[in-house]
Amino acid sequence: MVWQPGPTRPRRGRAVTTDERTAAAAPRRGRPQGHGPGFETRRDEVIDIATTLFAERGYSGTSVSDLTAATGMGKGALYRYIESKENLLVEISARVMTPLVERTREVCALEESPLVKLRLISEAILAGIAERPDYVWVYEHDYRYLTGTNRTRFLAQRSAFEQPLLELGREAVAQGLFRDTDVRLLMFQFFSLHKQVAQWFHRGGGWGPEELSREYCRTLFNGFAADSADLAAVERRAAELRP
Amino acid sequence: MVWQPGPTRPRRGRAVTTDERTAAAAPRRGRPQGHGPGFETRRDEVIDIATTLFAERGYSGTSVSDLTAATGMGKGALYRYIESKENLLVEISARVMTPLVERTREVCALEESPLVKLRLISEAILAGIAERPDYVWVYEHDYRYLTGTNRTRFLAQRSAFEQPLLELGREAVAQGLFRDTDVRLLMFQFFSLHKQVAQWFHRGGGWGPEELSREYCRTLFNGFAADSADLAAVERRAAELRP
Repeated sequence: MVWQPGPTRPRRGRAVTTDERTAAAAPRRGRPQGHGPGFETRRDEVIDIATTLFAERGYSGTSVSDLTAATGMGKGALYRYIESKENLLVEISARVMTPLVERTREVCALEESPLVKLRLISEAILAGIAERPDYVWVYEHDYRYLTGTNRTRFLAQRSAFEQPLLELGREAVAQGLFRDTDVRLLMFQFFSLHKQVAQWFHRGGGWGPEELSREYCRTLFNGFAADSADLAAVERRAAELRP
Repeated sequence: MVWQPGPTRPRRGRAVTTDERTAAAAPRRGRPQGHGPGFETRRDEVIDIATTLFAERGYSGTSVSDLTAATGMGKGALYRYIESKENLLVEISARVMTPLVERTREVCALEESPLVKLRLISEAILAGIAERPDYVWVYEHDYRYLTGTNRTRFLAQRSAFEQPLLELGREAVAQGLFRDTDVRLLMFQFFSLHKQVAQWFHRGGGWGPEELSREYCRTLFNGFAADSADLAAVERRAAELRP
């Protein structure tokens, strides 16, 4: 069987329903092979299965044989759906980032304070992680296996998400809401805190995205404001006790 | 060649000097094989090489053949140093955690405010990451490949590090320095912010551990204090704008 690569079409990520799974698991015999009505559904399911495997074993620890075994497909059929193993990473990244970039664009168009916008984006990040923890895990851990134009596109999409947030940070500094520090340093703290949550959900923190977002933003927004406590004394003592 | 497992001896992590590398790379011929003076040095070097490979390719993506190729050793000789591939992860984790657990114990014994103690531990975490970013990367990403008693010991060591920090959080809440929230939620934010730094160093933020620790603790300590800004209005607006 000759594998013909088709265009990569990142689709907005969403959960596969039980009905869809059932439908996909039992394709009608007699339908001509090709991009029939069930193709996208089945493709989503294959990507779902691959993501679970990557999250368990790592991208480089998962072989194409593992993928054929887990999907119950032959190699040829599998490649018709996934195009290539690396393309799975592209699809996984798109399912993580596309909704987030869209929501960020939507939020940034609002006439609201930068704090309200950051709060909404914070919740979108956490909701995305809660909905698809394995996707985010793979996205975070295995993006380094992307090569060539896949890597370039990945970095461009990550930048498309991060740049508007840096801009919001700048606005907040300009409005005196955040202290006047290098805004990259502030926003890196914003990113760091949110990214680590995939692990937290795994470890069973028991909080939902809405609650976590409220707490995180409370910490960050208060923390980024001018000092409310006398931390100079803490710094002096730490300097004396440094090894 | 029969491989005889010896006791695992986690040693306090430190960088291998150029002199040591040179010495290790050219073992004297004629020395009887065994745990001679160069053994530990050479072993450190092997673990260093393995860590670089794991950081690049992932633990599961690195084969024993990759390790023999990178170290220039035969399989038998390699195993004499590393005991097993999984044992490399044990050694890597020990080099990350042992100095950190020691420093935490040291700091917690001081008669200081919980803020000063947390500030010192924060800097120790960041200094450890700056010194050995690859070790921390592997530690964070590949610990899930530990099995059996290796895994149990890993979790115990992680707990030995985290529990005193939770205790410091509780003290800070009791003293009114931190707001009265579930202390796990506060300290998870402390951990999250610090852990993500391995990635930040890779991306060239350009800040040193001392400066980052000061900034992070400023954010966290101010952020964990009672509200200094009116965030209730932000919450109300976010609730109205939630999708």
